[in-house]
Amino acid sequence: MDFAFDARTEELRGTLLEFMDSHIYPAEPVFDEQLEQRTDPWSAPPIVDELKAEARKRGLWNFFLPGEHGAGLTNLQYAPLAEITGRSPHLAPIALNCAAPDTGNMEVLAMFGTEQQRKQWLQPLLDGEIRSAFAMTEPDVASSDARNISTSIKRDGDSYVINGRKFYITGAMNPKCQIFIVMGKTDPDAEPHRQQSQILVPRGTPGLTVERGMKVFGYDDSSHGGHAEVVFDNVRVPAENLIAEEGDGFAIAQARLGPGRIHHCMRSIGVAERAVEMMCRRTLGRSTFGRPIADQGVVQDWIAESRVRIEQLRLLVLKTAWLMDTVGNRGAHTEIQSIKIATPLTVEWILDKAIQAHGAGGLSQDFPLAEMWASIRTLRFADGPDEVHKRSLARRELRQYK
Amino acid sequence: MDFAFDARTEELRGTLLEFMDSHIYPAEPVFDEQLEQRTDPWSAPPIVDELKAEARKRGLWNFFLPGEHGAGLTNLQYAPLAEITGRSPHLAPIALNCAAPDTGNMEVLAMFGTEQQRKQWLQPLLDGEIRSAFAMTEPDVASSDARNISTSIKRDGDSYVINGRKFYITGAMNPKCQIFIVMGKTDPDAEPHRQQSQILVPRGTPGLTVERGMKVFGYDDSSHGGHAEVVFDNVRVPAENLIAEEGDGFAIAQARLGPGRIHHCMRSIGVAERAVEMMCRRTLGRSTFGRPIADQGVVQDWIAESRVRIEQLRLLVLKTAWLMDTVGNRGAHTEIQSIKIATPLTVEWILDKAIQAHGAGGLSQDFPLAEMWASIRTLRFADGPDEVHKRSLARRELRQYK
Amino acid sequence: MDFAFDARTEELRGTLLEFMDSHIYPAEPVFDEQLEQRTDPWSAPPIVDELKAEARKRGLWNFFLPGEHGAGLTNLQYAPLAEITGRSPHLAPIALNCAAPDTGNMEVLAMFGTEQQRKQWLQPLLDGEIRSAFAMTEPDVASSDARNISTSIKRDGDSYVINGRKFYITGAMNPKCQIFIVMGKTDPDAEPHRQQSQILVPRGTPGLTVERGMKVFGYDDSSHGGHAEVVFDNVRVPAENLIAEEGDGFAIAQARLGPGRIHHCMRSIGVAERAVEMMCRRTLGRSTFGRPIADQGVVQDWIAESRVRIEQLRLLVLKTAWLMDTVGNRGAHTEIQSIKIATPLTVEWILDKAIQAHGAGGLSQDFPLAEMWASIRTLRFADGPDEVHKRSLARRELRQYK
Amino acid sequence: MDFAFDARTEELRGTLLEFMDSHIYPAEPVFDEQLEQRTDPWSAPPIVDELKAEARKRGLWNFFLPGEHGAGLTNLQYAPLAEITGRSPHLAPIALNCAAPDTGNMEVLAMFGTEQQRKQWLQPLLDGEIRSAFAMTEPDVASSDARNISTSIKRDGDSYVINGRKFYITGAMNPKCQIFIVMGKTDPDAEPHRQQSQILVPRGTPGLTVERGMKVFGYDDSSHGGHAEVVFDNVRVPAENLIAEEGDGFAIAQARLGPGRIHHCMRSIGVAERAVEMMCRRTLGRSTFGRPIADQGVVQDWIAESRVRIEQLRLLVLKTAWLMDTVGNRGAHTEIQSIKIATPLTVEWILDKAIQAHGAGGLSQDFPLAEMWASIRTLRFADGPDEVHKRSLARRELRQYK
Repeated sequence: MDFAFDARTEELRGTLLEFMDSHIYPAEPVFDEQLEQRTDPWSAPPIVDELKAEARKRGLWNFFLPGEHGAGLTNLQYAPLAEITGRSPHLAPIALNCAAPDTGNMEVLAMFGTEQQRKQWLQPLLDGEIRSAFAMTEPDVASSDARNISTSIKRDGDSYVINGRKFYITGAMNPKCQIFIVMGKTDPDAEPHRQQSQILVPRGTPGLTVERGMKVFGYDDSSHGGHAEVVFDNVRVPAENLIAEEGDGFAIAQARLGPGRIHHCMRSIGVAERAVEMMCRRTLGRSTFGRPIADQGVVQDWIAESRVRIEQLRLLVLKTAWLMDTVGNRGAHTEIQSIKIATPLTVEWILDKAIQAHGAGGLSQDFPLAEMWASIRTLRFADGPDEVHKRSLARRELRQYK
Repeated sequence: MDFAFDARTEELRGTLLEFMDSHIYPAEPVFDEQLEQRTDPWSAPPIVDELKAEARKRGLWNFFLPGEHGAGLTNLQYAPLAEITGRSPHLAPIALNCAAPDTGNMEVLAMFGTEQQRKQWLQPLLDGEIRSAFAMTEPDVASSDARNISTSIKRDGDSYVINGRKFYITGAMNPKCQIFIVMGKTDPDAEPHRQQSQILVPRGTPGLTVERGMKVFGYDDSSHGGHAEVVFDNVRVPAENLIAEEGDGFAIAQARLGPGRIHHCMRSIGVAERAVEMMCRRTLGRSTFGRPIADQGVVQDWIAESRVRIEQLRLLVLKTAWLMDTVGNRGAHTEIQSIKIATPLTVEWILDKAIQAHGAGGLSQDFPLAEMWASIRTLRFADGPDEVHKRSLARRELRQYK
Repeated sequence: MDFAFDARTEELRGTLLEFMDSHIYPAEPVFDEQLEQRTDPWSAPPIVDELKAEARKRGLWNFFLPGEHGAGLTNLQYAPLAEITGRSPHLAPIALNCAAPDTGNMEVLAMFGTEQQRKQWLQPLLDGEIRSAFAMTEPDVASSDARNISTSIKRDGDSYVINGRKFYITGAMNPKCQIFIVMGKTDPDAEPHRQQSQILVPRGTPGLTVERGMKVFGYDDSSHGGHAEVVFDNVRVPAENLIAEEGDGFAIAQARLGPGRIHHCMRSIGVAERAVEMMCRRTLGRSTFGRPIADQGVVQDWIAESRVRIEQLRLLVLKTAWLMDTVGNRGAHTEIQSIKIATPLTVEWILDKAIQAHGAGGLSQDFPLAEMWASIRTLRFADGPDEVHKRSLARRELRQYK
Repeated sequence: MDFAFDARTEELRGTLLEFMDSHIYPAEPVFDEQLEQRTDPWSAPPIVDELKAEARKRGLWNFFLPGEHGAGLTNLQYAPLAEITGRSPHLAPIALNCAAPDTGNMEVLAMFGTEQQRKQWLQPLLDGEIRSAFAMTEPDVASSDARNISTSIKRDGDSYVINGRKFYITGAMNPKCQIFIVMGKTDPDAEPHRQQSQILVPRGTPGLTVERGMKVFGYDDSSHGGHAEVVFDNVRVPAENLIAEEGDGFAIAQARLGPGRIHHCMRSIGVAERAVEMMCRRTLGRSTFGRPIADQGVVQDWIAESRVRIEQLRLLVLKTAWLMDTVGNRGAHTEIQSIKIATPLTVEWILDKAIQAHGAGGLSQDFPLAEMWASIRTLRFADGPDEVHKRSLARRELRQYK
């Protein structure tokens, strides 16, 4: 259980930290300005492509992806780098081509895709030329129970025909989002974990309609393609678009979730660190009743609690990364669920205090805190609500004593 | 300490509940639709004026205002009515001409305005023909210490000249907002509580620029005029626009805050009740793993806790209203602070659970929960952050033992 | 919903407050001293009987019992008096003959007892001459589900024969405890709510063994007779000792619990008030780093939170009392459960902060805070764990929407 | 940052785990029985000495002490062993001669003692032949500010004369406690951190009176010598009893606290693990309403939360141990404070839930949970209240941004 940074991590950290200072932080106000001036309301501002080019030039690229297709880092090597990118969550992950949901989709294609699928979709994703979406959640059922998913994927000759409605499909409003991985039922009569399959649907396929952007606490998240409601009305794709075999959908989803969760958690810690820094700076810089706000006992309590909580959380994320590297995702199941449960609540709490320390400004577009909060809040649902994970974790704990 | 509804309250409750069912709830989807189709991005949809006409016809009008100018209700009479309007917070309060910040501004004009000021500004506000703003918070200082407010109001012959910058000026983006009550310093050398004054500034006065809408967790709150950043650059108004005397600003602000706080709290309880109802309906209507979500122990725990907390909170709000009626705002100081502290945290907690019970939809524009949450969150700052009120309350408690 | 004190309440409050100052508070150190010097380790010190005589002389007697047998107060009249007694929980309730479990037992005898039962047991209890116990909880089953109770009460000719084991039988270690009301099964085959009966068992009946005192966080609570483990081994009592009819046990228990819960809650608020007073006095009287501890922001936060929470809780208890008086215990079911859930957590929190404010002394026998905490902690189990009450309350809430 | 167990740790863990199973757990009921039968109310039962002999035979001895005098383990090696001993906190630490306050006192003597002091006091402590006490906290001042400590230590010829009153002096009621390390002021006029000194006072020195045992939530902790109130009335000891130099008291206390805190935290995690195990076993073994309590969602939530919190906490304790080993106590300051803050609250929460899961029994002497809770609660004061540590930690965090 060695969490020390190895030589490669140290080197990449150095390059990345330098890049944050020289490019990412200075780009933040530019990004905000360009957002206001966009013509397409769902596209990323041009600065994003510039940052991607700069990052790639420095070798800061595809860190998330192990193996030959990506940077080949272990989870433990990636963790501290992902944390750093979390400090500027709108710019740094995408600049390094490490933004969700592309990351998960690339993992799926790298692990399960055919050569043809990889060539057609993985490669342009790896090159940051297109973006992608993962269509699982449905508006009409409690998707936390995967068996509820009702979109149908029916074989019809050499094709599959897809019917259903999905929502909160992140990134799908962006016209650069060229490919959807869709989860649906190929066999409603199979045993529960073999009913689902995943299939590739290119944007523009007839019958696929991106209806509208769903909001998250008022944010449309348009700079990274929003969260779409999407309708599949007799959408027909060639049979070879199926990923792996019929009935593999649940297993593929599981394989995808482990890394996805840990990436979210790593970045969230970066968010928390930035919030603490902002809370310190703000309360040192403003005074009430003749003394800096930072002198107040209650504010110091927030800062101390934040530090104590972050330190614990980071170590658990690192341990989880190390376990995934050494015993695999299945062996790290309890830890993956644990960080999934612990991270949003911890970081939400810290952001809430940082917002409070900023006064009304903390709620506004002038500071990133409120938007960070909303984004973190979604993690209590994403990949299943906390409550489902807690129940599953508890049952595993109880099983030892039966 | 009698909180029972008297005959007038009962009668008005009956009329109001009928109006909610027949007009307000059915108007909610219409309102959302019209919002999408507005030409002016900061105006209320036309349904609002229709609802106002209907409400006024039924005598559901200006409940908030005691005395001859308003409905003449006591706080205790108004409390249960305000709670009901809180169930549809975007429509019901404005329909009854009981929406902030007009309510506070009308109170100030009724209490402190000259006959001329009342004729010119109070009357059209009472008639719901114009709207108004209250300009106190400043972006560059911690406004929780009123002494920090730095906007200057300088006497110059028969005029006052105003210079400063304000933000989070609710309602000011709305072109119907015709009058600003501005708080600023007339005498920086006076003793702390006599430095401030309040003055009337009509929209359109040269030098007054409404610069932009501030957001609250991504919401621009455009349907009720948003929250503006406003600049006063050598804004000149006649000396008779001053409200009361030079140096009275702090006292006027205090007089305004008591009722404002209790109105917010009353409505917030309505918000909480609606959230509990939605949480119950949703969890009864969706199933996971073969049983309604409402059967889950954790969900039942949320529902029970919500009920227990609401019941306590409502009683404290009622007691506060009763105290304000019987011993005045000063005598109710501890209770006013107590509900100001307790309400947002309690209602936030309930909304958070209701959101969680709704899955991703709970974050979206399809349910009012996320927007309600953001709105309630602002109350932890509005009229001073909780931390300032807690300190003040604790010092009063300690004083008894010195 | 009028919570004002009526004339009788005001008068009794005056007398009681005077009695607290003149007799109860001065008796506290005497009580502690006499406890050390007792010969019987499970008896009350002699000061208790002196206080009882003094209280009775002043008409401060049997406040808890409505109707002809007691003081005839309503719940709403009793509530503020009970709160005052809670400030000195070891002395004031017993001095007024208002201490559990006698109170509940007297209620049961007054409501359900035969003339003979009342003459033999109720009268000496009303006179404060003997004490009593209520034997329901069992060590070997989860008693929160009353159907689990396994003590058997079998008819045999003119007698009933009782077999079983009970624990946490409050007061039973005290030799003055002369009568046990025992809950057990007369008919295991009846429908669930008709299986149980209650029966009177005098101390000294052959087969009844008081085995040992159970502790509560190290306290043996010996001054009020402790909490005994009791064995019933073929205990035979005359058939006329049965209370009401066979199968009425559950209904009697329910009738008993309503008032019992509200008395506990009323007194607990008195405990909380005393804790706040002690917290204020202590933090004003000690300094660290050159300033009184009361100046620290975190301490002020505790004090303010305590005040805000107490005010809400007290009002809910008063409303519950008022409801019990006006619509009966059944109509007040939700409120009785609500105060049962809210009170221990609220008062525990306040006591925890008061302890922390006292430093190590707060844990010790030199201040009543730690013992108060332990006593309040038991309320999260007493009459059923919070979790059972929350579930029941939530189901009633959900039922409205089914 | 490598937390893996090295070979030596693995070997010792194996031996220790075997010893727990073969000797410690079986001794628990014997210990409880012998406690009841003691003649001296403040002595350890004889089983303790037997366990010590057995442990020493196996090389399970003085793990806590680095360097030549002890087992020579690093903090990181000791951590997982200390955790295991925490599972039986009354027996395992003392069996291994690793119980506070002897541990801290041995550290002080090993680091600062003269050869004579080490020979006379350290050696018998290392051999487990005598016990010792550390006398710092005073009843009359807020000891969290060390400058408040008012016991005087005055040089008088070849002696020092000590006057003052101390309380919560752990272990001092035990007649085997032969030596006191006393903290007091040698120079009230020196700069704050140079006023204090530490001095050795043997039991039996004239003027030293052990007055009474202080309780902790009703527990007298008599099996390990209780917590005494001690008076020093012109106690005269030879000048060579001073530890190090005059004015070094504060520095010695600091040196002592680091390891003391981490030992407490390590053991507390063992306490938490045992509580989770007990919670699982109990809820699997009891049923309500026809299903095991472990099936209830709220109980599963407790279990999952407990696991998530323990995992985070343990890692932070391990990191702290590792830091102390690699950069020293000063470099681990933030982490030492962090675990001091986080541990009691986390473990308290888990114990509270485990108690609740046990019903009334959870409060009793039949399960160790309530006593564990009381013991953990004291850690929020021990070595300074959490509030002092949070403030200090926050100020260090803020300093980075000044």
